[in-house]
Amino acid sequence: MSCSGGLTLYINLLSAPARALTLLPRGIRAPYEEKNISFFKGEHKSEAYLKIHPFGTVPAVTDGDLTILESCTALRYIASKYDTSGKWYPADLASRVRVDEFLDWQHTKLRKHGVGYYFNLIFAPMINKCEPDMTLINSHKEELKKVDADMVRHFIKGRNFIAGEHVTIADLIAACELEQPMCANVTYSQPIMDYLDRVKSHIGPDYDQVHQKVRGFTKSMLNK
Amino acid sequence: MSCSGGLTLYINLLSAPARALTLLPRGIRAPYEEKNISFFKGEHKSEAYLKIHPFGTVPAVTDGDLTILESCTALRYIASKYDTSGKWYPADLASRVRVDEFLDWQHTKLRKHGVGYYFNLIFAPMINKCEPDMTLINSHKEELKKVDADMVRHFIKGRNFIAGEHVTIADLIAACELEQPMCANVTYSQPIMDYLDRVKSHIGPDYDQVHQKVRGFTKSMLNK
Ligand SMILES: N[C@@H](CCC(=O)N[C@@H](CS)C(=O)NCC(=O)O)C(=O)O
Ligand SMILES: N[C@@H](CCC(=O)N[C@@H](CS)C(=O)NCC(=O)O)C(=O)O
Repeated sequence: MSCSGGLTLYINLLSAPARALTLLPRGIRAPYEEKNISFFKGEHKSEAYLKIHPFGTVPAVTDGDLTILESCTALRYIASKYDTSGKWYPADLASRVRVDEFLDWQHTKLRKHGVGYYFNLIFAPMINKCEPDMTLINSHKEELKKVDADMVRHFIKGRNFIAGEHVTIADLIAACELEQPMCANVTYSQPIMDYLDRVKSHIGPDYDQVHQKVRGFTKSMLNK
Repeated sequence: MSCSGGLTLYINLLSAPARALTLLPRGIRAPYEEKNISFFKGEHKSEAYLKIHPFGTVPAVTDGDLTILESCTALRYIASKYDTSGKWYPADLASRVRVDEFLDWQHTKLRKHGVGYYFNLIFAPMINKCEPDMTLINSHKEELKKVDADMVRHFIKGRNFIAGEHVTIADLIAACELEQPMCANVTYSQPIMDYLDRVKSHIGPDYDQVHQKVRGFTKSMLNK
């Protein structure tokens, strides 16, 4: 697993931040290479991958000598370096604040409860060979209702996207994190569903393509 | 609680991100106004404050018409707009990645376990009128050991500060989040203690000044 000279994304389409990440070079038509890191084969904890990402989580990004471990950091970096339109991570400070604010907020809100719901429903029973902990799962589901409401009243409000009229890296993270629990039957308010539709149609066919694997996988796990 | 025209910080020195935030305008000598939001008087959930920060957490920042709800976003914004040295949030992408990567990482690692430890030891017993949950508190303490090790091997490594030779906004967050559990008897490895010494001497007297309140408060709570 050697770093090539150009932009390389180490991803797995079961991971929401990894899906968000791969949508960016596609959206800005930046050349990049994609390497799949299999969770089931334990590749994220392999010696080769730990040389790239010492904490063994997905995604990671390399670009020449530079390695980036965090998805939001990688999104900021790729947009800053490769997006010639300047729209995906706006330089104008007032717009940039809207993007950064969502990215900082989601770690302990949308992502926390989305992962809390999804992981405990889909992965924990498989890993620990036990029944799903429905009390825990339902508490995350309840928190996702507050997340939904907070996104509607603050982060989306009357706008098309988080920072205004163009999809930014904040919307990539938002949409991919919202989609994950939705694969496992979480439902959202109409404003969130409308927002997701706008993101999807702004991005085009890549949107469903990157979500195909997680949708199929989740369905198969729920029907086991 | 009306927004003045210039930079206004709504803070409380018991809050680690609020302490980090107030150290920035001091460090870059940017004019700003500071308003204390009392947790004990419930001012963070008051009608007046909720008009500024709809989620009712501290800190918040206003600058003219702009309101910023997340500390890391506010740090990025203030440095980008007011730091003429360009050192506190470096524009050079390779250095900026080091700053952003730490800021993204700490939400679910250093801060999560620091708050998990401190809140459950100091605040939860007071709020819920019960004994501290030592199993939970000790699990966060164990996680803080991993956080310590990960900071040493990845974020600090052989460097003086997270992005190299100058303190950045990442070090402000790192130091203030590390100090909080330390007030309540958590200990760190020697490399972390040395790092904290470097941050402290780089910042000067403001460092101890902003930490005075939380140190005194914690001591009084532990000796009750
Ligand atoms: N804050 C990180 C989160 C990365 C993360 O938690 N990735 C998950 C997949 S979505 C993972 O690799 N989990 C495997 C593990 O933690 O062992 C980011 O945004 O990049
Ligand atoms: N991610 C936020 C965290 C803010 C936060 O959780 N603040 C705490 C104090 S450190 C707070 O206001 N807690 C009161 C509450 O949640 O009601 C930031 O970095 O600004």
